[in-house]
Amino acid sequence: MREITSEEFQNWEHRYRTCFINSLGGFKALCLVGTVNENGHTNLAPFNSLIHIGAHPALMGLLFRPDSVERHTLTNIRNSKVYSINLVPNHIMAQAHQCAARYDVHTSEFTANQLEPEYLNGFKAPFVKASKIKWSMVFESETEIPINGTSLVIGRVQTIYLPENSIHADGFVNLQDAETLCVSGLDAYHLCHPPVRFAYAKPHSVAQHIL
Amino acid sequence: MREITSEEFQNWEHRYRTCFINSLGGFKALCLVGTVNENGHTNLAPFNSLIHIGAHPALMGLLFRPDSVERHTLTNIRNSKVYSINLVPNHIMAQAHQCAARYDVHTSEFTANQLEPEYLNGFKAPFVKASKIKWSMVFESETEIPINGTSLVIGRVQTIYLPENSIHADGFVNLQDAETLCVSGLDAYHLCHPPVRFAYAKPHSVAQHIL
Repeated sequence: MREITSEEFQNWEHRYRTCFINSLGGFKALCLVGTVNENGHTNLAPFNSLIHIGAHPALMGLLFRPDSVERHTLTNIRNSKVYSINLVPNHIMAQAHQCAARYDVHTSEFTANQLEPEYLNGFKAPFVKASKIKWSMVFESETEIPINGTSLVIGRVQTIYLPENSIHADGFVNLQDAETLCVSGLDAYHLCHPPVRFAYAKPHSVAQHIL
Repeated sequence: MREITSEEFQNWEHRYRTCFINSLGGFKALCLVGTVNENGHTNLAPFNSLIHIGAHPALMGLLFRPDSVERHTLTNIRNSKVYSINLVPNHIMAQAHQCAARYDVHTSEFTANQLEPEYLNGFKAPFVKASKIKWSMVFESETEIPINGTSLVIGRVQTIYLPENSIHADGFVNLQDAETLCVSGLDAYHLCHPPVRFAYAKPHSVAQHIL
């Protein structure tokens, strides 16, 4: 067992520390966020900060970093109020990663990375055609996190597109079955094993398998 | 491809909808949060809302729901300012799930679920001995999310404990190697396959494998 104090990791080289702390915090959802600017230029960016906010209403958040990187996605969401969230299946892993490159605003990540955009039901933001589980979002709120200047952008889930057979009888969506990836750290992608599920936990009992 | 509009899912049965929306939003980290109250009673609760906030300083967040469930963990963090985060290895999956049961304040989830607490370096909050990757946290801030009354609690990473061989040369922590679980929905646990890693993405290139 290695023990690492804050005094120790504060002195680590910047990139090493970024990599370490980012990967320490557990597995995360991987999604591609599709947006469009006022001139109709599309943008597609990978995120590992998708967070469930609530189901009633159906809300999800994305955390945006405060640093100087051009944040086309955030600008587009602020202006157009709409975006798509596309979970990433295994077969487009490399292309999804490559969408993180700093293309200029005139270069669409869709074109640069051979990902076909898809427009569904007149929604303004593009979806990723290769994504099997995706949904449209409408901007609801932006909350600044004062301690480090990050922004938590919350949107409301609109229309969801997914394979019929990925929905179980109780509403559970089997992401693993659709070869959906998760991510650890900044650049590590994982397929998942099938889920093991348990019934709602009650005191003074043991966990009961339901799957 | 099934299409589900917000008009449709708004009318779904409450629990079905909760299950669906929670599992739709991708894979999440699974952790057990260890706290202690002012009388020395320990508490241990599973969370699927751990979120990376930043690496400089090293900050992580947990989202707490606004509903009427007793929130021992939040109360203890507010009062004591300290907590432990313990990633969950596969062999304690069922016990971790069972820690979600609504035990009264006098029943420790450690005792009820045969999880041995561990005290490290005089830190006041208990760790989970069986967890291989864990760290101490000091409370930094609490931000209310106005749209649904959830609270984002942010803490600063203090001391980290993990297997020496899980740290790669560039600082990456291999969670999969330690059989760390991720979670989807409210009750589905997954082991992960080994990571596939790519180099920092540059425009007009293709993704380069580094693992």
